[in-house]
Parts: sequence; C-alpha cells; structure tokens
Amino acid sequence: MGDASALLAGRATPFLLVDEELVLANVDHMAGFARSRGLDVRPHAKTHKCAEVAQRQLAAGSVGLTVATLSEAERLADCGFGSFFLAYPLWVDAAKGARLRELQQRADVLVGIDSVEGARALAAQARGTTVLVEIDSGHHRTGVAADTAGALGEAAARAGLSVAGVFTFPGHSYAPGVQADVAASEAAALSEAVDSFTRSGLDAAVVSGGSTPSVHDADSAVLTEVRPGVYVFGDAQQWELGTTTADRIALTCVATVVSRSEDKVVLDSGSKALGPDRSPWATGNGRLLDHPDARITALSEHHAVVSWPSSSPPPELGSRVRVVPNHVCTAVNMTEVLVTTEGEEWRVVARGCNT
Amino acid sequence: MGDASALLAGRATPFLLVDEELVLANVDHMAGFARSRGLDVRPHAKTHKCAEVAQRQLAAGSVGLTVATLSEAERLADCGFGSFFLAYPLWVDAAKGARLRELQQRADVLVGIDSVEGARALAAQARGTTVLVEIDSGHHRTGVAADTAGALGEAAARAGLSVAGVFTFPGHSYAPGVQADVAASEAAALSEAVDSFTRSGLDAAVVSGGSTPSVHDADSAVLTEVRPGVYVFGDAQQWELGTTTADRIALTCVATVVSRSEDKVVLDSGSKALGPDRSPWATGNGRLLDHPDARITALSEHHAVVSWPSSSPPPELGSRVRVVPNHVCTAVNMTEVLVTTEGEEWRVVARGCNT
Repeated sequence: MGDASALLAGRATPFLLVDEELVLANVDHMAGFARSRGLDVRPHAKTHKCAEVAQRQLAAGSVGLTVATLSEAERLADCGFGSFFLAYPLWVDAAKGARLRELQQRADVLVGIDSVEGARALAAQARGTTVLVEIDSGHHRTGVAADTAGALGEAAARAGLSVAGVFTFPGHSYAPGVQADVAASEAAALSEAVDSFTRSGLDAAVVSGGSTPSVHDADSAVLTEVRPGVYVFGDAQQWELGTTTADRIALTCVATVVSRSEDKVVLDSGSKALGPDRSPWATGNGRLLDHPDARITALSEHHAVVSWPSSSPPPELGSRVRVVPNHVCTAVNMTEVLVTTEGEEWRVVARGCNT
Repeated sequence: MGDASALLAGRATPFLLVDEELVLANVDHMAGFARSRGLDVRPHAKTHKCAEVAQRQLAAGSVGLTVATLSEAERLADCGFGSFFLAYPLWVDAAKGARLRELQQRADVLVGIDSVEGARALAAQARGTTVLVEIDSGHHRTGVAADTAGALGEAAARAGLSVAGVFTFPGHSYAPGVQADVAASEAAALSEAVDSFTRSGLDAAVVSGGSTPSVHDADSAVLTEVRPGVYVFGDAQQWELGTTTADRIALTCVATVVSRSEDKVVLDSGSKALGPDRSPWATGNGRLLDHPDARITALSEHHAVVSWPSSSPPPELGSRVRVVPNHVCTAVNMTEVLVTTEGEEWRVVARGCNT
C-alpha cells in the first residue's frame, strides 16, 4: 500500500487510508483461527462502524455483529444488517425502549445486563428481549461476579426476559505480556458463571468473550464465541503488544510534514485525527509505519511532533507519511470516510453513535 | 444549570450541555480583561467550532477568529464570518492553494509560517497573503527560534508575502503552577522576535500569543493580542490547573449511570463522548461537576468508571450526572450539536475539519 499513487496525492491530509486486501486477510485469518477452535466470531463493529467492513466479516462466517450502543445498531440496520449483540448494560428508559422495540422489528437483538434493576427496566420496555449476563473477569468495569450470574439470570427470567447466556470483556488484556493470563481469567470467570447458571437451572447457550489482544489464547473448552474488534485493522497498540505485525496493519492516517528541523518533524495528524489515546506502556502517540524507529513524542489537536532517529534524515517538508494510530477505534470515529488504496470511500455510517 | 428539566430528560445520553449564560459570562470576562490591558482578543474557534459561540465572541469585541485548519475557516466563512487567522504553518500545495484563494475572496486571512520552504509554497499559490511568523517560545512544537524571526520574515517578503508580525503558542502552560513563568517566556520570545524583525527592517504590527492557562499573565507591554480558546467553556484541565472554577464551567457531558456498586458507578460517557485526553498531572479522566470528590478512574469508549467517595452513596442506576471533560476541544469535536440549557441546538459546524 506504500505506493497507492503517492498516497492519493490529490486528497487533503490528514485522512484515513485502508488497504482492502489487508482487511480481507485479517478477517480471513480470524475466521480461520476461530473455525479451527470451534468458536463463533461476533466481531465488534465499534472499530470500523462501516458497512463495507461488516459485509466482509459476515461473508467470512461471522454469526452477527457486536455493538456498544443502540444507535450503532440502528445505523448498521439501516445498511441491511440483521443481527446485533449490544454488549453493554443498557439503561432502557421509555425513549430507548421505543427505539429498541423498533430495532427488534428488523433485526435479531441480544442485550447485555449486569443488574436486576437494569433487567427490570429493559423488560418493562421490551418484554421477551434476549439477554446475556455480563461477568467481570478482572477488568473491573461493568459486569457481576461470576458466581452471581445465575441469580441475575433468574431475576431477568422472572422479569420476562429470555436469558441466553453469559459474556465478559477481558479488557485487562491491553497490556504487555499478560494475554495468556488474561485469557485464563476470562475462561475461569465464564466457566464459573456457566456453573452458576446451571445451579439456577439456566442454560448458557452463548458463552462470549474475547478481545483482540487475548483472542488467540481464548479457551474454546469454555467459550462458544469471541468478539474481537481491532483485529480487522490493527493499530499501534496491537503492534507494540506484539498481537499484530507492521505488515498486517490495514489502516493508517496519511499525514503531511508541515514543520521540520534536523532531528524532528511535525505532521498535520493531531489528536483530532489520530485520537489522543496513549496507554502508559505505549512508546509514543502513534507510530510511523515506514519508519519504525521514529516516535511521536507529543500530540496536539493538529500537530504530531515526531522525534527522528539519527540513522536517516527526516522526510522533506510537504512529503506524506503513514501514521499508525495508537487506538484505531478512536481514530475511525473522528472521520466521515475511510479511503481505500483503490480510491474508494467507505462511509463511517455509525460515526459518533454514542446513544 | 443543575435543574434544566432534570438535565433534559427526553434526550438520550451522553450529550454535551451548554449553559448560554455562563458562555456569555466567560466571553465578557475575557473581553473585559483584555480591554483593561489594551490587548485584542482573537479567540481560537477550534474549541467550539460553532457559529453561535463565535457570534458572541465577536459581539464582545474580538478582532477575528483563530482557527487551526483551512477547513475550519471555510465552514465558519459559510456561516458569514469574515476574519480568520490560521495559526498553523500550512503546507500549501495546489489543491490547498485553490481553497485558500477561494477563502480570500470572502474573508480576511492571516496565515502562519515557520519555514522558508513553507513561505515559498504559500506564495506560489497565493501571492500577497498576509502572514505571521511563528516563534517557538518553549513548547517545542512548531515555530522558529525568536532571533531568526527577521530572517524568515525577510525571506517571506522576498517570496511575495505580506509580513504582518509574529505569533507563538505557549502550550507548555498546560501544567500546574507554571503559568506566570510560561507567560514570561512567551513575552521574552516575542520581544526577541520583534527585535529581530526590527533589525531586518520589518514591522511587527501583530504580536500574538496567549493560551487559556497563561492569558491572565500575558505581558501587554509586548503582546498586541491573545488567542485563548478553552476559556469560553472551561474544562476539567482548567479546573484542576486553577485557571477556572467549577461555577464558571459552561459545558458538561450529561451521562447516565448504567452500572453501580457500593463504591463505584459506571457512566455511559466514554472516551468517544468525553475524549481520551489525560495529562500526566490530571487526577482522572474527567470530573463530575456536582461531585468534586468523585474520580473517573478509567475510561473506555462507552464507559466511564467513577470511584465514589465514601462520604455519600453513589447515584442510582438510571440517574443523570454532569461530567466535565478533561479537554473540551476534543469533546466538542466528537458531537454534531451542543444542546443548551434552554433546549436549543448549536451545530458544531466545523466538526472534524482537520484539513
């Protein structure tokens, strides 16, 4: 993708450039891996928010799309997709209830729950909705303790919901060297949750986990499906975690050198293009795909300050480089279109869909 | 603004809520301060990207709008605004040159330069453009050394540009306890740049500096104008730096409690609503306006995990709270509209305008 007509010279920078062949390769790789383990893939669409990518994921055998919000599902349903897991403990008031019922007219919908109150509020608006109980497997965000999954499932069933299983998000996998341990904690928590379901007389037909960093360590003896998102593009976090390699990164931000000195350049890809995400273990605010020794040492809204290695002169003013965002989900959410190396535009249809 | 019909109950969370009276008070305060010092205000519109706010700034006497990108200026010119300073070392290729010339047909335009090559590229596309030379006053992002300002100004004039003065962005003011020192370094650098201009036979009619944290320490013996942006809304960074107070914060993100335990709650205002910005000195990923002892200890795309103080019980599931984003410029850029406490919608017309 380095050539792509000098990175689509006519288009104003910064913009996000996608290599369709690498997207397909990443989708196929994940599909093949999951198939070999007997796992379903329900990819998280928050990463791409884009019909063209979702189509390719479903064509490769994905069982449906995962989303974080009702509005993400609504926009993707507008594009014709028909199966969504809202992996989030929605608080369903009357307005959200009306939207959910409308969505259920045109799509299969699974919804996450992590409280009796939340389950009752959901049931009051959309009785019979199919739910999965969220388990905290160590990320300590949302989700209940694994051994209480059955009690919550029972309460949800009594409230009039259809309880189909359990899920967790092992978000503590986003750190160096922890993936196998995190996958083990994910499996232990989900296994305990399934046992808790069994004690309550409930069946966990769906046991859902998985994140891009930990998915290759997912325990297929416990899980029935995985929900990776970032894998489809890759990003600098995954590159630095070693869960992808530079040659598999399918999305970059094309940026122009606007300022230059002997040992640094400044690019026009700031935090409003790349996203300000920076984990404590990250080596910078994003990476340069073709210059792995360079480091983005500071990021403002429209400036990326790049410390340049002494081994080569920094690129000329006005030249274009490819920046790998730290966190691709954030970068995609800030643009209207992804531009392909073929010059096509894929609309980010669910951009900004937070509600 | 705490009442505002239970924070506009019918609207799905998260959304950004603006108190128009506080916006006006912040605008008037800055205008009055600058007037008392004999400084012009050229507020940075990247913070709000919004005609309704720009109007109020100009009505209070601002001399024009500062923007970071050509597309921000284009969208605001579409709203009828007619004076822009692009405080950025634009790299002007043919496509950008055509857009700049079109903008110059309908607005007064100042452009930043920080290299001879950049000045020549600009002049080749838009001869006669009025420029300000950018100085590095210690933030080490873009800008030339102060004592070389005259040389760059001369080269720009020779290339066919109209050289009107100098500017700097003292971005190193975004840290605790440094504001007076940073304002002093800003004044010293600009003063040296003016001297350098004089030695080159150039006049610096405009000497522009200022940032929200440092603006009240700006040296009016040196500067002719200031370019604060964030002051119009305030945010958690300014609150924690002590450069605003909670009762002057004019923008919050209204969020719903979606998960709850004894000592924490999870809100639906994640990094895709608040922005992931977190300076090393910040106490969290944003603050709760009405609960100053609570802390957002972790932020995912759609989750804000709030550690709750033992002094009061956490709010109930489904209740709404007001979150103050760490960095308001990033938060505003991720939404289509700002909702006022009167229920009006202000469109973020220059949202995502990175080019």
